[in-house]
Amino acid sequence: MAGCCAVLGAFLFEYDTPRIVLIRSRKVGLMNRTVQLLILAYVIGWVFVWEKGYQETDSVVSSVTVKAKGVTMTNTSKLGFRIWDVADYVIPAQEENSVFIMTNMVITMNQTQGFCPEIPGKTTVCETDANCTAGSAGTHSSGVATGRCVSFNGTLKTCEVAAWCPVEDDTEVPKPAFLKAAENFTLLVKNNIWYPKFNFSKRNILPNITTAYLKTCIYDAKTDPFCPIFRLGKIVEYAGHSFQDIATEGGIMGIQIKWNCNLDRAASFCLPRYSFRRLDTRDTAHNVSPGYNFRFAKYYSNPNGAEHRTLIKAYGIRFDIIVFGKAGKFDIIPTMINIGSGLALLGVATVLCDVIVLYCMKKRYYYREKKYKYVEDYEQGLGNQMDQ
Amino acid sequence: MAGCCAVLGAFLFEYDTPRIVLIRSRKVGLMNRTVQLLILAYVIGWVFVWEKGYQETDSVVSSVTVKAKGVTMTNTSKLGFRIWDVADYVIPAQEENSVFIMTNMVITMNQTQGFCPEIPGKTTVCETDANCTAGSAGTHSSGVATGRCVSFNGTLKTCEVAAWCPVEDDTEVPKPAFLKAAENFTLLVKNNIWYPKFNFSKRNILPNITTAYLKTCIYDAKTDPFCPIFRLGKIVEYAGHSFQDIATEGGIMGIQIKWNCNLDRAASFCLPRYSFRRLDTRDTAHNVSPGYNFRFAKYYSNPNGAEHRTLIKAYGIRFDIIVFGKAGKFDIIPTMINIGSGLALLGVATVLCDVIVLYCMKKRYYYREKKYKYVEDYEQGLGNQMDQ
Amino acid sequence: MAGCCAVLGAFLFEYDTPRIVLIRSRKVGLMNRTVQLLILAYVIGWVFVWEKGYQETDSVVSSVTVKAKGVTMTNTSKLGFRIWDVADYVIPAQEENSVFIMTNMVITMNQTQGFCPEIPGKTTVCETDANCTAGSAGTHSSGVATGRCVSFNGTLKTCEVAAWCPVEDDTEVPKPAFLKAAENFTLLVKNNIWYPKFNFSKRNILPNITTAYLKTCIYDAKTDPFCPIFRLGKIVEYAGHSFQDIATEGGIMGIQIKWNCNLDRAASFCLPRYSFRRLDTRDTAHNVSPGYNFRFAKYYSNPNGAEHRTLIKAYGIRFDIIVFGKAGKFDIIPTMINIGSGLALLGVATVLCDVIVLYCMKKRYYYREKKYKYVEDYEQGLGNQMDQ
Repeated sequence: MAGCCAVLGAFLFEYDTPRIVLIRSRKVGLMNRTVQLLILAYVIGWVFVWEKGYQETDSVVSSVTVKAKGVTMTNTSKLGFRIWDVADYVIPAQEENSVFIMTNMVITMNQTQGFCPEIPGKTTVCETDANCTAGSAGTHSSGVATGRCVSFNGTLKTCEVAAWCPVEDDTEVPKPAFLKAAENFTLLVKNNIWYPKFNFSKRNILPNITTAYLKTCIYDAKTDPFCPIFRLGKIVEYAGHSFQDIATEGGIMGIQIKWNCNLDRAASFCLPRYSFRRLDTRDTAHNVSPGYNFRFAKYYSNPNGAEHRTLIKAYGIRFDIIVFGKAGKFDIIPTMINIGSGLALLGVATVLCDVIVLYCMKKRYYYREKKYKYVEDYEQGLGNQMDQ
Repeated sequence: MAGCCAVLGAFLFEYDTPRIVLIRSRKVGLMNRTVQLLILAYVIGWVFVWEKGYQETDSVVSSVTVKAKGVTMTNTSKLGFRIWDVADYVIPAQEENSVFIMTNMVITMNQTQGFCPEIPGKTTVCETDANCTAGSAGTHSSGVATGRCVSFNGTLKTCEVAAWCPVEDDTEVPKPAFLKAAENFTLLVKNNIWYPKFNFSKRNILPNITTAYLKTCIYDAKTDPFCPIFRLGKIVEYAGHSFQDIATEGGIMGIQIKWNCNLDRAASFCLPRYSFRRLDTRDTAHNVSPGYNFRFAKYYSNPNGAEHRTLIKAYGIRFDIIVFGKAGKFDIIPTMINIGSGLALLGVATVLCDVIVLYCMKKRYYYREKKYKYVEDYEQGLGNQMDQ
Repeated sequence: MAGCCAVLGAFLFEYDTPRIVLIRSRKVGLMNRTVQLLILAYVIGWVFVWEKGYQETDSVVSSVTVKAKGVTMTNTSKLGFRIWDVADYVIPAQEENSVFIMTNMVITMNQTQGFCPEIPGKTTVCETDANCTAGSAGTHSSGVATGRCVSFNGTLKTCEVAAWCPVEDDTEVPKPAFLKAAENFTLLVKNNIWYPKFNFSKRNILPNITTAYLKTCIYDAKTDPFCPIFRLGKIVEYAGHSFQDIATEGGIMGIQIKWNCNLDRAASFCLPRYSFRRLDTRDTAHNVSPGYNFRFAKYYSNPNGAEHRTLIKAYGIRFDIIVFGKAGKFDIIPTMINIGSGLALLGVATVLCDVIVLYCMKKRYYYREKKYKYVEDYEQGLGNQMDQ
């Protein structure tokens, strides 16, 4: 018991520190301090100041709502005079993080269930019934083949299909885009972000934005960088594309909102940064499956109870609101990890200088003698200890 | 060759360890041990026990389905007696991570394409045709102006627009909310999560939940914290808001599911935690662009083939299901990084004590002499070595 | 001033390196080198080569579009002969990261607002009006009870409800699935990814994919691993499930696209990896709330202006496209952190060997004497210094 206490006492009241050789040499000394300085500069400058290595980070959790505004009119021989408003061109009416604006369309009206000839194509043109396989439904066909070869128009015969008739003919897409005036439509993007780790939340309608300003402003990278209302034409332009091109064949635009926040500073410095990117980029040389479109139908009932529909192949721009960003706040753990690593790196200076001093310099044997104390294993080497 | 072997042998059979000065001093010793203890306590207690620094972490991948239930009836002079069920008030019928429940609406029935006076407003009231610009379509207008100034009612004249007529009048929003009974509707949230790094998956309908329980339970933070069925009114209440307020002007509610799992423990401890937050928070003092609404239309065909529609400006609550969380499992890499940093930090104790012992204590010269061995550069300083 | 310069000069031209005891012992030397080698192997092999600890990582930002293709026909007594195409079975027509394919349905045609008996069930069967509570609307009821008990069919009486009549009877779900031919439908998934930190973007339609290939290919894990067109049946099969089962009661399938990219290599090595998983997994033993379905309605107007609707309870498969992955690129910060930690770990070798040499070996007192220089506190211990 007493021995134990003695050992504990010895342990507690002991202080061990490495013995150091202090070499007073201009060359080596300067080199050593320079290397230490570089490492210190790296640790402080890069890791702490630039990369904010002393901060705990968190990824953003966000919620988005988008509201389109705008109305336009068209006048075509097929549809006559027609007004298009939000309820007509936003499909579906509501989505979570995106909004689709129809800008072009192939409309097939008054389709009913029945039998009709296919649109002429590589696999659908026929001469006799033998060319058509009853019951087959290829991936690109509009219906199920009946096996009959019927007249498509005066000169051409195609396989007959059971389908919604007449079959859609999408070989010619209107150019310029049917709703080309969509360029002037606007999107109001409301974005609310939250950093769960820091319980910090903010919205992109900043506290200094007034109702009056919100009614008239349009986002502009230079003059109105915080206005959350975007003109479609400008979004596409900022992304470096042509609105009329994208309106014709459709596409996906990304409205990126970056919330990089340093929460060690005031919350008012945490601001959204908008940027725009076309998400379905493609090489012009490599134009496989371009654009964006989908089909939907409006169903009507005839007075006799039968159903007919209007099929619309909608080309348009889907605006995906992509919210990303990181918030950082001082935290002891990453700070300590980085300090730990930095200290360990400081040790590198000593290792590096040691290599130079002990292996490269002329006086290396002299320095080695000072640094090392050689101890041979007991049996073989008692005598050697004399030379220390 | 032989020399090379000798060097290799010397390298292999050598063991170098720093020489240590062991100072037996109560003051310094105690200080040294205390600092070491604090660092050790920090490394073990905070980094390992609290922050689980020995674990590799992974973010959750999740899939969500939501199913609303509930039916209510309304009786108004405009619509008469009417029943509202899921197919009526959930728009669109299906979404990926959210569900929209319509709670209020401005309905404009029997709209057809035509010409009609605008709703009176700052820019639409006119006295003569000169006040109206033909062809203009402002962001907030319902149609394209024809340039004529026509009678809106007996006393007021407004600009005529080509639009879906009659034009929607949304100046008065029903209050209390039209479908205020939505408070009692329920949402069944099915959530399946997956941690790809650990190939661990789980669903929020826990293994001990029976079909019978699922048919009757309602989530309650205290009594039924794992029931995945939520009453709309309770969700809003838990978030600290009034259901009738949010039902009138619409809003976004977040149903947050937190899956923080320590996969070093049994899978049954990995449980979902629900919380609720209003995502479109706003200061009451700063009420810019409040609520949530959008417009959609139901299209009908007349017997003569013409189309008319019912336009609905739907106010309601969008419930976004936000799944987040981190799973941790023991992994050698972060463990080693943290041990490495911890060890490096232990070195700080020595540096700290050295500073005190060698620069602040009365006997500093005595200690310095013990710790350091001064070596002058060869040429200048052979004589100095004697003083070691 | 001069003193200050002298101190600064001394500081700059000084080089301190620890004094080392170099013990020439086969046993200890080998042990020391082995431990060092293991730590070095771990740091280089595991941290750097395997886990690529020298890389900065970034998470993927992605945009997805999905296009379904396929047409089928059904022939039932209720609906007669009918063709189903994309506009019929994809609901809603467009979603952000997922697509729903209806495979089965319970259809209730010609519903109008009115009064009708409930579907018989535990709570709805009645004998007299006293069994029915007027105004009540349970979570699972189809309408609001009127309080009357009326005849459901010849033998059974149920409570009358105000509802869309006739009430939906979903007790019998068609089996096999109504649109079981959906097995042969295809999905074209277009995915564009972006790593913001490295400004690297790529799409899943790889540069070497031609239009001709894209028209005919079908994804196959072995023969066509980069074809972005998936046959529904194969997706379910790859996930280890039966298509006809999932088609009957619905479900959620995940199409996972993994983009793990080492951006230190050429961009052409950054390739998408597809995998498939059923997201609504359930134990067969624990079959609570299986499948996936939702209700939607198509609204029609009668010639007299009244509204009727067709209610569809749609069972089907929702395909969620889940894009995940990490890109890594050499960066100095993580490299330094890992080197720092590695170096600190190398120090562990010395500590470990010291413990063995100084506490476990026979000659420990001899070694201790060589390593340590004991210094007693001045007052008590001047004499002791002699024994150094």
